[in-house]
Amino acid sequence: MELLKERIRKDGKVKDGNVLKVDSFLNHQIDVKLLEEIGKEFKRLFGNEEVTKVLTIEASGIGIAVETARAFGVPVVFAKKSKTKNIAGEVYTSKVMSYTHGREYDIIVSKDFLGPEDRVLIVDDFLANGAALEGLIQLIKDAGATLCGCGIVIEKGFQPGGEELRKRGINIQSLAIVDSMDPATGEICFRD
Amino acid sequence: MELLKERIRKDGKVKDGNVLKVDSFLNHQIDVKLLEEIGKEFKRLFGNEEVTKVLTIEASGIGIAVETARAFGVPVVFAKKSKTKNIAGEVYTSKVMSYTHGREYDIIVSKDFLGPEDRVLIVDDFLANGAALEGLIQLIKDAGATLCGCGIVIEKGFQPGGEELRKRGINIQSLAIVDSMDPATGEICFRD
Repeated sequence: MELLKERIRKDGKVKDGNVLKVDSFLNHQIDVKLLEEIGKEFKRLFGNEEVTKVLTIEASGIGIAVETARAFGVPVVFAKKSKTKNIAGEVYTSKVMSYTHGREYDIIVSKDFLGPEDRVLIVDDFLANGAALEGLIQLIKDAGATLCGCGIVIEKGFQPGGEELRKRGINIQSLAIVDSMDPATGEICFRD
Repeated sequence: MELLKERIRKDGKVKDGNVLKVDSFLNHQIDVKLLEEIGKEFKRLFGNEEVTKVLTIEASGIGIAVETARAFGVPVVFAKKSKTKNIAGEVYTSKVMSYTHGREYDIIVSKDFLGPEDRVLIVDDFLANGAALEGLIQLIKDAGATLCGCGIVIEKGFQPGGEELRKRGINIQSLAIVDSMDPATGEICFRD
């Protein structure tokens, strides 16, 4: 998605430790017009999949999921990162290792909102090690729902998550794949 | 907002401890069409305020903020609940008491995304004690930005937050104000 790559080149910041900061337009401040185009692009890529729900994980996936779900005309479900008082009753749960925060956490989805009849598109802002996607895919399996695929805004192609998931036959579509980036020069190379 | 009140009556669940569960359409599963109408209603209510940013707090405010910001044609900024590795540099910070979780937490916004030139509309899903709004208002003050008002989806009118903030001259517009609710019967009474 050329518009996205241009924006990453212009406003993304490469930091040490394989960090690509896109918080000026994607996951702290959000350019809603760009989000709308991202949603339309996921509709173009997964439009034949008869998607019934768009699933993501709080917090930075939510905006992307909302604009994607709007393009599809279906609801969003976002997995929550810990059990709160406001979620009673039964939930699906799986564990996710956060490399950013250096700890493991639980994600949960209420059993009311995912079921065997659902065809689910997962969306998220980043794919690196694939830990968050693995957790979300597990929730879909536990619900007996069908995984249509995963729409990723930015994939770090030099980390193993995308390759491992594709090997298992999962339809991963990333709008920008970063093959390398250099914190010294700020240069970002995208896969064609 | 009649559409919202109807939906709360139909799908909201009253639980003990003043809990109103709306997680089937607002803050776990999200009805994106309803969200779009909420965004349009906030545009109608605050359309003359020359809003430049829509500010909210992760996670359940984000979807509401995205659809509101789309109606205004401005960016979203969402405050984050704790400092992560991905936010370097300087941030505005304030403290919020969570009655749901029974603990205090920090919220932060990067100084890059709020400044004296900004006219900020705060949006959030619930207003009860007003703790989250107080924290967000403090961030706006610290940034030297102008607070245009607060757009709330559901206000618990029997809790003190809304009244206290209005007394201080803050323009609070709630799309549904619950005056009372009964966990035994499930009845919800809205303010006219």
